[in-house]
This record gives sequence, C-alpha cells and structure tokens, in this order.
Amino acid sequence: MKVTLSALDTCETSFTPLVVIELAQNVKEETKEWLKSRIIAKKKDGGSQLLIRPLLNKYEKETLVNQNLYLIGASNVRLLLGAEALGLVKECNDSTMRAFTYGTRQSFRGFDDNNDDFLTMAECQFIVKHELENLRARDEKMIPGYPQAKLYPGKSLLRRLLTSGIVIQVFPLHDNEALKKLEDTWYTRFTVKYQPIDSIRSYFGETIALYFGFLEYFTCALIPMAIIGLPYYLFAWEDYDKYVIFASFNLVWSTVILEVWKRGCACMTYRWGTLLMKRKFEEPRPGFHGVLGTNPVTGREEPLYSSYKRQMRIYLVSLPFVCLCLYFSLYVMMIYFDMEAWVLALHEDSESEWTSLLLYVPSIIYAIVIEIMNHLYRYAAEFLTAWENHRLESAYQNHLVLKVLVFNFLNCFASLFYIAFVLRDMKLLRQSLATLLITSQIINQIVESLLPHWLQKKHGAQVKRKLQALQAGIDATLYEQVVLEKEMATYLGTFDDYLELFLQFGYVSLFSCVYPLAAVFAVLNNFTEVNSDALKMCRVFKRPFSEPSASIGVWQLAFETMSVISVVTNCALIGMSPQVNAVFPDSKVDLILIVIAIEHALLALKFILAFAIPDKPRHIQMKLARLEFESLEALKQQQLTLVAENLKEEASDREEKQAP
Amino acid sequence: MKVTLSALDTCETSFTPLVVIELAQNVKEETKEWLKSRIIAKKKDGGSQLLIRPLLNKYEKETLVNQNLYLIGASNVRLLLGAEALGLVKECNDSTMRAFTYGTRQSFRGFDDNNDDFLTMAECQFIVKHELENLRARDEKMIPGYPQAKLYPGKSLLRRLLTSGIVIQVFPLHDNEALKKLEDTWYTRFTVKYQPIDSIRSYFGETIALYFGFLEYFTCALIPMAIIGLPYYLFAWEDYDKYVIFASFNLVWSTVILEVWKRGCACMTYRWGTLLMKRKFEEPRPGFHGVLGTNPVTGREEPLYSSYKRQMRIYLVSLPFVCLCLYFSLYVMMIYFDMEAWVLALHEDSESEWTSLLLYVPSIIYAIVIEIMNHLYRYAAEFLTAWENHRLESAYQNHLVLKVLVFNFLNCFASLFYIAFVLRDMKLLRQSLATLLITSQIINQIVESLLPHWLQKKHGAQVKRKLQALQAGIDATLYEQVVLEKEMATYLGTFDDYLELFLQFGYVSLFSCVYPLAAVFAVLNNFTEVNSDALKMCRVFKRPFSEPSASIGVWQLAFETMSVISVVTNCALIGMSPQVNAVFPDSKVDLILIVIAIEHALLALKFILAFAIPDKPRHIQMKLARLEFESLEALKQQQLTLVAENLKEEASDREEKQAP
Repeated sequence: MKVTLSALDTCETSFTPLVVIELAQNVKEETKEWLKSRIIAKKKDGGSQLLIRPLLNKYEKETLVNQNLYLIGASNVRLLLGAEALGLVKECNDSTMRAFTYGTRQSFRGFDDNNDDFLTMAECQFIVKHELENLRARDEKMIPGYPQAKLYPGKSLLRRLLTSGIVIQVFPLHDNEALKKLEDTWYTRFTVKYQPIDSIRSYFGETIALYFGFLEYFTCALIPMAIIGLPYYLFAWEDYDKYVIFASFNLVWSTVILEVWKRGCACMTYRWGTLLMKRKFEEPRPGFHGVLGTNPVTGREEPLYSSYKRQMRIYLVSLPFVCLCLYFSLYVMMIYFDMEAWVLALHEDSESEWTSLLLYVPSIIYAIVIEIMNHLYRYAAEFLTAWENHRLESAYQNHLVLKVLVFNFLNCFASLFYIAFVLRDMKLLRQSLATLLITSQIINQIVESLLPHWLQKKHGAQVKRKLQALQAGIDATLYEQVVLEKEMATYLGTFDDYLELFLQFGYVSLFSCVYPLAAVFAVLNNFTEVNSDALKMCRVFKRPFSEPSASIGVWQLAFETMSVISVVTNCALIGMSPQVNAVFPDSKVDLILIVIAIEHALLALKFILAFAIPDKPRHIQMKLARLEFESLEALKQQQLTLVAENLKEEASDREEKQAP
Repeated sequence: MKVTLSALDTCETSFTPLVVIELAQNVKEETKEWLKSRIIAKKKDGGSQLLIRPLLNKYEKETLVNQNLYLIGASNVRLLLGAEALGLVKECNDSTMRAFTYGTRQSFRGFDDNNDDFLTMAECQFIVKHELENLRARDEKMIPGYPQAKLYPGKSLLRRLLTSGIVIQVFPLHDNEALKKLEDTWYTRFTVKYQPIDSIRSYFGETIALYFGFLEYFTCALIPMAIIGLPYYLFAWEDYDKYVIFASFNLVWSTVILEVWKRGCACMTYRWGTLLMKRKFEEPRPGFHGVLGTNPVTGREEPLYSSYKRQMRIYLVSLPFVCLCLYFSLYVMMIYFDMEAWVLALHEDSESEWTSLLLYVPSIIYAIVIEIMNHLYRYAAEFLTAWENHRLESAYQNHLVLKVLVFNFLNCFASLFYIAFVLRDMKLLRQSLATLLITSQIINQIVESLLPHWLQKKHGAQVKRKLQALQAGIDATLYEQVVLEKEMATYLGTFDDYLELFLQFGYVSLFSCVYPLAAVFAVLNNFTEVNSDALKMCRVFKRPFSEPSASIGVWQLAFETMSVISVVTNCALIGMSPQVNAVFPDSKVDLILIVIAIEHALLALKFILAFAIPDKPRHIQMKLARLEFESLEALKQQQLTLVAENLKEEASDREEKQAP
C-alpha cells in the first residue's frame, strides 16, 4: 500500500497546516482524544474551534515513527475572528489604520472573501498560538489519564500539558517558498543595501523585524562616529582637547539617535498597525495564574492576582536577591584582581616560563566564572520573574530584562570601571577594551550562527537520507519538513541579540574618549551581524511565533540609561587624563570643578534635548488623535442608541400595561 | 415712574443672568444690534444661541448711567448641549465617569429635567464664556459701524471687539448666597482644618481649586521639614553631619511629596471629571488665528496654523530673546555687586553717617531694578507667547510659564548663588536668605490681599451710598451687584500664586542645609496665605471664569526641576562647609570626589524613585483603562452598524434595479 500523508487526503482540501504540536511518545489515547476534542470544540463550549489532523494516518503509523505529531490549522473565518479578538490593526481602504473586525472586513485594504491572503501566515500562526494558549480548564480537575497533572478553572491547558511533559513542543511551520524569497532579498547576496524590513515583518512578526530594524539603524548611526574615530587611530591623535570634542560629539549624537529612533519606530509600527494595538487589553500571559474572576477593565472572566502581592514579591524578594547577586559579582571581581596581583608578584619573584603561562590563568578563570554566573543568574532571574506572576507577557519581559541587564552590565563593565577609576591605567583600559570588544564579537558570531548552521546542515542531510531510504519514490515534502523542523533549536527571543547590541553600545560609548576606534569595530561587526543573524533566523532555528510589538520596549530605556552613564564616565576620564591635568598644574580642585560643571551642563542638555524632541512625528500624533477622537464620538453615539432603546422599551411596557 | 430692572420683567421668568458684557459708553446702536443678533442667532446660523438682556430697560436708561451693561444667560437645554460640546465629564448613576451627552442625560447622577442644579453655576458660566469666545466671523469684513475693526472668516468676534475697545470686559456674576456659604466653611473662622476643596471647585472651577489643594498639600508636606528644622535653630546645631542628614532627608522627601501629589491630584481630578476630559479636542484658544480649514483630527472647520512656523518662531525668536534677557539680568546683578563693593570701600575709607546710609542704596536700587525687569520681561513674554500663536490655551500657558519661570528663577536666586559659590560667605547667605524669604512673604500678603480688600470695601461702601441716594426705596439688588462687581479688579489667573509658592519652595529647598528654619517660616506663611488668598478670591477680585484642568500642569515639572537643582546645590554647600573640610584636611580632591559621588547617587535615587512610583493610583488606572476599552468596543460596534447599513442600501439598490 502506498504511503500518503493523511493531512492531504482529508475532505477539507483547504486545510493549511500552520502549527505543529508534538506529544510525548507514550501519551495515552484517552488524553489525545480529550485534547483533540478540546481543540476542535466550539468557542462557546470553552474550546478553541481550530482544526487538528495527525501528521500520519493510521496506515502510515505502522511503517513510520513520529506518530505523535499533530498539525493545527483553522478555517479562514476562524482566523479572521481570531484576528478581531486579538485586536489586530490593519489598513483600511481610506488608508487609515483600524482594529480589524469581521463585520467590517470589506472596508480593509486587500481583503477579498475568496482569497485568504489578507492575513500573513505569521499572523495566522500567532492567532492559532494565542488560541491554543488561552484554551483554559473549565471543570476538569486534572488532565484525563494523568491524575498528577492537576487543573483548576482558568488554568491554561497548554501550559499544564507542557509542564507535565505530555506536550513536548508547539511550533509554527516554515513556508519554504516565502522563506526562499525572503532570503534572496535579505542576505544571500553580499551587497550593501537596506534590509527588507517589511518582508521580515510579514514573515517573522514585528518583534524580530524591529530588532533587525534597530540593528540596521544603530549601525548606520554609528558610521559617523566611526568616520570621526578613524583619524584618531591613523594619526595617533593623543591630544585630549580632540578627545573632548569627540566625547561631546558622541554624547549629543547618542541622545539624538535614540530620540530619532523612537520617532522612526513609531512611524514603522504605525504602518504595521502595532502602535495602535491595545496591549492593555491583551489576555493574561499563559504562565499567569490566579483565581478566576471578572476583570474590572474588560468585564471578561479571567484569572486575577492581587497587584499588591506582586509588588511585595518584587520589592521584598526579587530586589534584595538582585542586590545580593550584584554584591557577589563585585566580590568575585575583587578576588580576580587579587589573584592577578598575586600571580604577577609570583612571576616577578621567580621569572620562569611556567609562571609567565600562569599569568593568563586568572583572566581565564574569571572569564569562565563570569559566564557561569551569567547563566546561573539568568535561570534565577527567569524563575523569580515567573514567580512574580505578571499578568501580561510584556510586564514579564520588562521585569526579566531589567533584572538580567543590571547584572550583565556590572559583570561586563565592572572590571573596566575598576581599571579606569581605581587602577587608573589608561593603557591597560584601552587594551582590555579592545580585547573584550573584538574577541566577544568574533566568538559571538561563530557560536551564535555559523557553528549551529553547519551542525544543522549536517543533521538535515542525515534526516533526508534516512527518509529517502525509508520511503523511496513517494512525495512526502510536508512530512520531511515537519520532521526536519521539529529537530531544530528553538529561538528564545530577541533578548540575547539586544543584549549583545547593548553591551556593544556600552563598549563604544562608555569609554569612547579612550578608544575612539571602538565605533569602527562595532560598525564592521554589525555589517556581518546582520547577515549571520538573518541566517540564524532563517536556517538554524525553528520558525519563531510572530509577536506584535510597538517599540523595542525596555531596551529603549536601557540604551538611554547607558548614554547617561557614558556622559559621566567620559567626563571623568577626560578629567583624569594627564594632558588635561597639565593645563591645571597648580590646582587639581579647579580642574575637578570645571569637569563637574561641564558634566552637569551636558546632562542638562541631554535631558532638555530628550524633552524637546517629540517621541512621535507630528503626522503620527495627528492620526492617533483622530482615532481617539473617533472612538470617543462612537462611545457617545452608542450611549445615545442605548438610551433610545431604553425609552422605546419603557414606552412599549407602558402600552402593554394599558392594553388589558 | 418706578424704576424696575428690565432683566426681571421679561416674559421668560427663568432667565438667570450668568455673565455680564460691558460695552464702551459710546458704542453705536448699529453695532449693539448686530452683536445682540449674533449672540441670539441659532448655532447653525453661526450664532451662539444664548440669551441677552440689557441690565436696564429703556425707561431706566433715562435716569441712570451704566446703559452699556448686558446680561447673558442661556436656556437650560442650551447649557446642557454646551456641556456636551465641551466634553464635560460627569458621574453616572453606576458611579463611572463619562462625557456628558444630552441624549443620555437621564443616566447621569443627580440629573432631573425639571431641576437645573445639574450643572454648577461655574460650569454654566464657563460654557457661556466658551460659546461667546467661539462666536466667529463668517462673511463680515469688519465690525458694523467700525470699519477699522477688520474681520476675516474664523476670527473670534469677542476677541476683535475687546481689542478694538468696543467691549470693555466680560465677567461672570457672583452668586452671593453660595459665596457666603463657601466663605463660612473656608476662611472666616480661624480654626485649623482642611479646606472645602470640592466646594471651592464647584464655585471657582478646577484650576483654582487645584491651586488651593496644592497650597494645602504643600503646607502639610512642609510640616515634617519644619519640625525637623526647628531643633537646628533651637539648639544651634552647627555640626555638618547633622546638616547632611537634614539635606538627604529633605531630598528624598521633596521627591516623594511631588510624586504623591501627582497621585492625589489624579484622584481628585478623576472625581471632578477633568482627568478624563479630552484636552486634545478642545477648540482653539480665542487668540489663535489662522486660515479657516478642516482640522485633520476632528474634521471640523476651524482656523489652522502651521506648527512648523510656530516652531520657527519659538526657536529662532523667543529662545534667543529669553537667553538675551537672562544674560542682561546676570549683567545687572554683577553691576549690583560692583556697586556694593564700591560703596563698602567708600564707607571703609571715610566712615560717616552719610556713607553708612549709602550702604543700603545698592540693595534698594537692585531690588527696584529687579522688580522693573520682572515686569518688563513679563510683558515681553506675554507678547512673544501670543505671537507664537499656540492653538490651545494650555500650550500658550505652558510656554508663558516656562519663559517667565526661567527668568524669575535667575532674577531671584542668582544673587544667592553668587554669594554661596563665588563669595562663599555662608553667614551672608543665611542672612540674605532669611531677609528675602521673610520680607517677601510679609509684603506679598499685604500687597496681594489685605490692601486690595480694604480698598475694595471702601469703594463698595461708596457705590452703595451713591446707589441709595439715586434710587431710594427700590429693590435693585442685581443692579447694585453688577455695578459693584464691574469695578472690581480682574483675577489674572493662578500664575502669580504658583510663582510665589515656587520661589518659596526654592528658598526652602535650594539652601536648606544652610538655613533649616526656612521650612518653619514657609509653613507659618502658608497658614495665613490660605486665608488671604481665599479672601482675595471671594471679596477682592471679580469672580474668575472657571477653567477645567487635570493637573497643575507645567508647575509639576517646575517643582521637580527645582528639587533636582536643590540636590546639586545642597551637595555643593555641604562640600564647601568648613566642618566637612576639616574631616579631609590633607586632600581637598578626595572630599570633592566623595561629594560628587554622593550627589550622583542621590540624583540616581531621585530618578529611580520618580520612575518606580506610578503617576496614577491603581484604581484610577483601572477606571481609565475601562473607559478606553469601552470606547474601543463602541468604535468596533459603530463600524459594524455602518457596514450593515451599507449592505442594506446595496441590497435595496439592487432590488430597485430589478424592479422595472
């Protein structure tokens, strides 16, 4: 008998597989049936009203493994209703942006009832994911067949299934044709050009497109810095008056680029519709738990958790823990410097080849310890932030980013600050800075993209060969794709990519007056980073779920904070330089006071600039104001209709009474 | 013939005089008729659809002066429609706050068709004022009878009438009964109690109530500072470690009180409905001019003015002018110090009674010059801000406040800064501070309230006597009231009151570690200030038009900026003190670095605190989110209805086509 894919011979020919659910191998039939029925069940019965198909039909199961893969799809109407529930914003025919509603679907640009191109595949997958995640327990006390997997009303089923190990993973499928097209315009040809941000957005979603947009913008913004920094290296300019000019320029530049990014970002996300998407009314995140109650804002039934308790957890547990970790990190750094000094003394006492090798040992140990600490801390931060039980995914992300950021900042820059302000060894500072920046960039690119890509390719070839041996001569593209993709690594979000950029920004801006060449290296790195990150997204990782977002969120704040810190460090470095000190040979006090005065003036200028440049361009402000005005007018109108109805009812009541 | 007031013998007995318009004595009859007809004309004919009555009827005119006073009123329905147009927010029966609409009037708390107590008199007057101000020229090229008073479409008639001197003033009438009641609970009995803020609000409007609320809050917030500051004076604590404690406490305190005020203010204005009032959609301010066009936000016809041009005016004219004035003010200060030194030298050279008197001359001259400069600058700032042509009253106010504030700050504090940081004479600083603070407070209270009140009383008695002589034995309460009130001075807004508080806050916080007793004087002053300001509002000035506002606006920012500056100055003062210097006898550099480090840490703490404390209490946030959610849902609903209508029309069109 010929092996055919069950997904292809269903009665509904329009079934497009969007998302794959992988169950554990030994899941009981009872559980499978229950899960399937819950997914198929109508919305009003507490289901998610999606379509589900096993990847293989019964006959195939006998000859093949992977009997535990299910494909999820949805009818076109279901997806459109899901888009409405999510509040997706689309462009109308009159080129305004409005929240999509099924009822008004004809007024949206590019909509056609016979054509399902209106929603991008990424959006469809996001809708499916959202529906699956918000499939919640009603009266079940446990997952059927697994008495230890407890449920309570309002608990997200998928979350419980994942934590109990019944569902191994849920991931969206690639669209090979579209992916190929995207790759061609993105990174396969090595020419200098802008990235196709809009195409990236429609394939990977807004969060990832914003990352690539920011990476590109940031790189372009660094080019002037690099051009100005280059002659400092070429002509070996060591005059500190030149460095002062460079540092001041750096500073105004860094403020302005961050403000301009905010405006550009608002334009972009307005076009994408995410600027208007109301994050406030998003459903609680899957990990959120609480007692089922009525949300006072939306009036919908959903789990509630007291914000007071959350605050207590944040301020009484998380905050002290983070402080403790910071202290510990500083303590480790001090041990490192002690070790360094001890080894140096040993080397000077008894100079031998053995001791000169030993000189490298403290750095290596410290580097390893830092990495370990970063990882351990990351786990702790994730655990704590989950325990804080934030209602919205965005709040969770913000708190996590803040925690990890502070720690990473200290871990990466503390030693540089120590060298700069305690040891006051500018030569060593420049050396460490250059080494740190360049090596971290090279290692990052190799470990992050090229190595996984090579491994992935090798693995892919293996899988292909195995498949061909098993089922020679049949068309099994979908089966092959699913099996290949399920083995790919999962992309864990833009966090690490932003963190890399953030640390790079730190290297470039914090000590820029000591090492103006940093910007040059950053630009060079980012040109290849775009390509390696693109490769990573397209070929190394599973396709990530699209995630709408209106800005780079907490990272904007992080970059702004970094640029404030950089003002302080740059002023201090300039004040400490021997050239500047030579100008005030008699009075160090005068020198310090002048530096402080300049620093305060620069900080004030920074805040005034940030205040004076509006966050959103005027035309976007106008459009937002128009939408708000319309929605208020609509509310008034609705109230009027309500009153009219009430009056009519009253009148008819009266008539009825008079009738007999 | 008996003299009766025409306002009382009209056919509409329900006419309540709300606002008085005073025309010039010699205004042509033609102009009067035209103005009356425009005021009475229907909204759709470009009128304001209000009621107007002369204060005196034709018979009375023969015997009395004041033939040029007109009373403006409005029917109850007109006022309610005006409230809807203005977007006044009122409490509903389900205790949510909603924008009032006439159609849904029954759902608002306290509404009754037979009773016109729903809108307070202050609100009615505000509505009438708004309607009068937005009475705009249609096709008139000039004011009838005054060819030199040019008009163009969209020009506010009232504004042109005022600038041409045809209308002398427009002011709302007091409600003597309500005023008496308010006074009794407010200030007539000298007991320590909270002010009746809600009553003040319903009589004078939100802006003035917020001022008194802020004054009260600020005074209460200063009490702990005063209590802590007192022992420093009593026990003559001169230890600078104690001052350091005081300054640090001061600092955290000032940050926290400003944040807490924001929250309290949000609660208050939510209750009053102004927090929800959409300022964005307010009509352009009366002084705003431009070419009639369609507002892109509301789609309404109104004058438009390019924001680009406005920006040019602000940055290319106003900003340089302000900088020039600041420079000039500093220059004058330097002349003062030169004069001071010159006089001192003269006095030391030839000590005589004549020269010791001469010692006071520079201070007196400087004080006078400062006053003159402040006044001249104020006129210039008002002219420039009007010339910038801001669309909204709030934007105009913000720009004016910012301009005046910067100049006043420098004028008042520059000499103190000079004494503190250039002369470094702490004793002189303390002296100047105490003198400035106390004398300015005493003079302010006398000049601002008591003196005008006394003059007003005297004048009032005169008017009364005159009236009694003229028309003995008749009831002319309203006539008397109007004539009395039209002679009262006009209250020019809360600007000067806030400025006084702002400068007081500066005296208390900027140099607090030198003079902790400042808070004590401030508290004592504010206790009487409340009463003298209340007296001023109720008895000295004409009743001001109520003005809705959601916060103290730009003053919040001003106070926050002041508290940032105070961190810097306090740290600098502590660092300069001999006691602290004595701790570091060898190394001044170390001392400065420590002080700088502490300053930066304090500033960082300040910003973190401001960031961590939410601006609005949680329950207010929830209510706002709920309203936003509802309005979005309503918009969706409306779009749906629209589509349904379109479909129906299409269907009927098709039927019609098929019919023949």
